[in-house]
Amino acid sequence: VLLIADNLRITHRRIAQALKEENPLPIQEMVRCCEKAGADALDINSGPLTKNPRRKMKFLVEAVQAVTALPLFIDTANPVAMAAGLEAADHKAVINGFSLEPHKISAILPLAQTHDVDIIGYLLHADSQVPQNSTEKLNIAVDLFETASKFNLRPDQIIIDPIVPPLVWQQGHLKAIENLEVMQMLPELLGFPVRTIAGLSNLTTGRHHSDKKLLVEQAYLPMLAVSGLDMLLFDIFHHRTLKIAKACDQLTSDKIFSWEMLR
Amino acid sequence: VLLIADNLRITHRRIAQALKEENPLPIQEMVRCCEKAGADALDINSGPLTKNPRRKMKFLVEAVQAVTALPLFIDTANPVAMAAGLEAADHKAVINGFSLEPHKISAILPLAQTHDVDIIGYLLHADSQVPQNSTEKLNIAVDLFETASKFNLRPDQIIIDPIVPPLVWQQGHLKAIENLEVMQMLPELLGFPVRTIAGLSNLTTGRHHSDKKLLVEQAYLPMLAVSGLDMLLFDIFHHRTLKIAKACDQLTSDKIFSWEMLR
Repeated sequence: VLLIADNLRITHRRIAQALKEENPLPIQEMVRCCEKAGADALDINSGPLTKNPRRKMKFLVEAVQAVTALPLFIDTANPVAMAAGLEAADHKAVINGFSLEPHKISAILPLAQTHDVDIIGYLLHADSQVPQNSTEKLNIAVDLFETASKFNLRPDQIIIDPIVPPLVWQQGHLKAIENLEVMQMLPELLGFPVRTIAGLSNLTTGRHHSDKKLLVEQAYLPMLAVSGLDMLLFDIFHHRTLKIAKACDQLTSDKIFSWEMLR
Repeated sequence: VLLIADNLRITHRRIAQALKEENPLPIQEMVRCCEKAGADALDINSGPLTKNPRRKMKFLVEAVQAVTALPLFIDTANPVAMAAGLEAADHKAVINGFSLEPHKISAILPLAQTHDVDIIGYLLHADSQVPQNSTEKLNIAVDLFETASKFNLRPDQIIIDPIVPPLVWQQGHLKAIENLEVMQMLPELLGFPVRTIAGLSNLTTGRHHSDKKLLVEQAYLPMLAVSGLDMLLFDIFHHRTLKIAKACDQLTSDKIFSWEMLR
């Protein structure tokens, strides 16, 4: 499982402040900490960047790249910011992401074609509603691949995000388990390997004791791993969650189990 | 998941010594600690009890029952000791267990009928070899149910143990993952709910750093839980593993998710 740090996000006050002042230092400190903690990649969650989206995203990507060579996921719903991020990236970044919402198809999806990059597709309806069951989710996945192919994207450029439901949602945990079945069925349904990504911290959104949140994410993560998850977006400073991810990798690998790979 | 403590075992020196001296106190101290730690049931792993099996098992069961009302699993390959344990038990104990080995069928299985108790069936060949693949395992499961029915046991009296493989075995982790598929396929194949049990500590048998062992068991446990596991046999003093089991219960439950149930 590729471990993507979700820590570089505008909802962190220090990151928001640094972006406002265009001060790269707090951002770079965060990036170094993420890399040191064991991140394989970084998600740059800038939010919508309503003011100066081009300039702000360029600043963000350049600040990050100055201190790391880790792959980047550009995480914004603003197509102008997304384009600026992809342009500023030294290496191919990943678009996070698109859905069947018309403005995402028209404004975000073409950027994947132009820049020949991978793109995350969310299992959401065209009206941005969350699908109600597995069948709806599988149909949406088929639609995402079909839509992408109209923009000449290859199936291997698409990474499916089944949307991890917050447990505070009604029947949230049932939907979380349902996502596992969807992930297992995708390759069989589509006839080719389907890469998947999950945002683990979504599960425990809300005010709960942090150790309970960690317990729940550490219980759900191996379920995701055994269901074929390829990429995990999570708080890289959750050290034990990272270690469990490594243990899951060893258990689900085709190679020889290595105790040495566990840290 | 029913949490069964595997701590009361003859391989613990203090328990072996207490049994030898027929001193109930160290055994009862262990039982109290297991109950306090959160055990739902206790496995009494007496070993073969080659000397005085009737007397020794009677002593063990009576010592345990004097301080707890938790359900008991009688874990011995010796049919004389097994019979004594079932007779001494105040409440119905569970037989752990039988396999397709002829002497188990002839000597252990009839005890389940006589005492009308549940019995664990191991997915092992008649020559006690471990099956090589899922198909062999599923065939053995069918044979176990058929054999049990000849002794007038009902399907709901049988608890299938797919045998958790030690990771030190060749391709042990692949076999561990294979067991999950077997567990998922059993109810579909047999056409009725099939209860399952797994001995978690088998996975990490051998000399490894204890934190790495815990990591691996905590990664494998949620995979078992999401595959339908009913009963977990494990070291109840592995406190975080127990907490993760509780979190798995919440995630896989049909009821409303309760943060309060997480300790």
